[in-house]
Amino acid sequence: MSDIKAEVIEAATRSKAAAATLRMLTRKQKDFALNAIADALVANESSILDANRIDVDDAIKRGTDAAIIDRLTLNSERLAAIASAARDVCALPDPVGDVIRGYTLPNGLEISQVRVPLGVVAMVYEARPNVTVDAAVLCLKSGNAALLRGSSSAHHTNVALADVMRQALASTDVPVDAIVLVPGTSHESVEVVMTARGLVDVIIPRGGAGLINSVVNGSTVPVIETGIGNCHVYVDAAADIEKAVAIAVNSKTHRVSVCNAAETLLVHKDIAAKFLPALLSEYKKLGVTVHANPALVGFCKSAGVSYEAVTDADWAAEYYSLDIAAGIVDSIDDAIHHIQKWSTGHTEAIVSQDVEATRRFVAAIDSAAVMVNASTRFTDGGEFGFGAEIGISTQKLHARGPMGLPELTSYKYIVTGDGQIR
Amino acid sequence: MSDIKAEVIEAATRSKAAAATLRMLTRKQKDFALNAIADALVANESSILDANRIDVDDAIKRGTDAAIIDRLTLNSERLAAIASAARDVCALPDPVGDVIRGYTLPNGLEISQVRVPLGVVAMVYEARPNVTVDAAVLCLKSGNAALLRGSSSAHHTNVALADVMRQALASTDVPVDAIVLVPGTSHESVEVVMTARGLVDVIIPRGGAGLINSVVNGSTVPVIETGIGNCHVYVDAAADIEKAVAIAVNSKTHRVSVCNAAETLLVHKDIAAKFLPALLSEYKKLGVTVHANPALVGFCKSAGVSYEAVTDADWAAEYYSLDIAAGIVDSIDDAIHHIQKWSTGHTEAIVSQDVEATRRFVAAIDSAAVMVNASTRFTDGGEFGFGAEIGISTQKLHARGPMGLPELTSYKYIVTGDGQIR
Repeated sequence: MSDIKAEVIEAATRSKAAAATLRMLTRKQKDFALNAIADALVANESSILDANRIDVDDAIKRGTDAAIIDRLTLNSERLAAIASAARDVCALPDPVGDVIRGYTLPNGLEISQVRVPLGVVAMVYEARPNVTVDAAVLCLKSGNAALLRGSSSAHHTNVALADVMRQALASTDVPVDAIVLVPGTSHESVEVVMTARGLVDVIIPRGGAGLINSVVNGSTVPVIETGIGNCHVYVDAAADIEKAVAIAVNSKTHRVSVCNAAETLLVHKDIAAKFLPALLSEYKKLGVTVHANPALVGFCKSAGVSYEAVTDADWAAEYYSLDIAAGIVDSIDDAIHHIQKWSTGHTEAIVSQDVEATRRFVAAIDSAAVMVNASTRFTDGGEFGFGAEIGISTQKLHARGPMGLPELTSYKYIVTGDGQIR
Repeated sequence: MSDIKAEVIEAATRSKAAAATLRMLTRKQKDFALNAIADALVANESSILDANRIDVDDAIKRGTDAAIIDRLTLNSERLAAIASAARDVCALPDPVGDVIRGYTLPNGLEISQVRVPLGVVAMVYEARPNVTVDAAVLCLKSGNAALLRGSSSAHHTNVALADVMRQALASTDVPVDAIVLVPGTSHESVEVVMTARGLVDVIIPRGGAGLINSVVNGSTVPVIETGIGNCHVYVDAAADIEKAVAIAVNSKTHRVSVCNAAETLLVHKDIAAKFLPALLSEYKKLGVTVHANPALVGFCKSAGVSYEAVTDADWAAEYYSLDIAAGIVDSIDDAIHHIQKWSTGHTEAIVSQDVEATRRFVAAIDSAAVMVNASTRFTDGGEFGFGAEIGISTQKLHARGPMGLPELTSYKYIVTGDGQIR
């Protein structure tokens, strides 16, 4: 066994031991620890910001993109916001112990299906150091041990944040190993986590498609795939033009760097002449580039909006930019087939006043969220009222769509009898 | 691409296309097809039994164990029972469309979390040909396409059953590719299914530990691990002796070849002298061999029961036989620690009249089912009142314990607005 492997296995073993204790703690004990963490983050501001400065300076030396440096950078205000978010989690109900279902069998056995923590939740994530705290806090509240592997570019910050949080736990009933940072920053350490079946109960990757695919393909530990979003907006023949323009604009341009932003627009041919001039003049103002199918090119020319001919790569693209693939379709079924072919199963929207069309679309589309006359941007734990979000699942197993605290739990059956045998 | 790979991918692609249709069918359409399948199985008895005869003759020629040949063998009565089970599934509620949760946001958006089929469910299983029909029927009822890979020893039977079922579907609204047998019997064909991410939504292995581990380690498709059961019975200091004997006997001996049979017995030292003589005389009559820890050996000698010294291999064993590992423990916490070390997370039982002991055991044990004063044999979809069972999950993600029709579904969020944007 390599040194790295031995170290990571040792870390995961500590997480597993902590999980056995965490599972049995009360909400009061966990909330007390959450407040202690929030206090400690504020009290240790200077050491955290010093560590962050090292990561930021390194990133600047490497010539890192300014937007990424901004995501990496902590300051007093941002750290206070992170601590405040940890306090907010105290106000959320504890999912552990929730009875999902309960009933009594004819033989008198009483069956309860009760939420329990998953156990050890490994998070593998990129860039933003706030994820280190967010993930630790949500895992703690839901009774899970957090095994955290951030990116090497935020390594000093992550070490400082984890140290502060662990020191805070030392004076609480929560074991310090409720929060463990995976040792090292090599790829090997991630590989050990991904194959630590029996120690790690679930692994949640958060980051770009490369990271997520690498975890999905390399893990023997169960994975929850998150956040790949090639989201579609379909404007039906029976759409309300004003709503359709607002939704197509908001879905694309409200924030382009997020997974619930729209990447493709499909327009029914019968409404194209009325809808597209209104939309494309807005897109022109906002600096959107349209990757247009042949039927749509003429509208782009007339509107004077920036455009290119669409390719298969465009239909598949998550631009995370002010680009959108767009096409005129002959029917709602053509739109559905297009989406079935290219969607990543995140969010698709229909704009229509026709109940038959919306029923058909909702039934046929197999995505985590289907929006009827609303922006794709609403697929979000905060917007859904969950109070917190650990990620947005784009797989069908376990959890789908925004994942809050209940999605960080499993359940067990408690069967109570008075001597029943078969 | 090899010929086998191309064939399996083609088969899985047909399954995926069928899933897109299945998702939109009504309960009436699915129940009609289930009855058509039941009718066809009975009507085509002779061709099915002829095919089964080939598999059975082959197995006899290979010198296969009589018990395995019995599991492989179909006859008129068994086929009628399989058809009858398919009809029974019609009576179960359709999980698809069930609204798990629904609420309205302050901005007027209406959110519904609605059960939908998983999509393409691949089953990889051994020996018994009834699984071919059971799995197809449960998948169909829950709106999933079934991609089936049975063992090569039942190949002729499985082909015959699948052909009959598919022919029955031809005169219904359900696409024939709702039921697809994976082509070929090579290991390569299983490997292609396990890595067909994007075509296959979930893979459920059913069989021995070798099969399950091979699927768990080789799959990039999400797996539901099933049926590995090293189940424990703990007899507490405060146990009712009569109940404890009945539960320890029933859990071990009612049916030894199943995953919910007990494989380890732990006895609190304070009750050993009262409990063990009564239990061991029963075990002696029933032919049980006790793999005893040192403290327990004396009791075995006195009772005259067959015994051996227990080893770590025994604590880990799923015997599937009239053997049981057994030990005297000093405390409930010792029992809990032993179980935490050796359990496969299936089912553990405590026998005790002490509420503090049962509370502690239930909270600390991290298994799919925890029995209080009841036999481990109750962890079963039929016993739990599910009406049907596709397997018993021993993982924490998605489903845990017995899996019925709802566990064969995912969900999606349907968000209905009237033009909301962020």
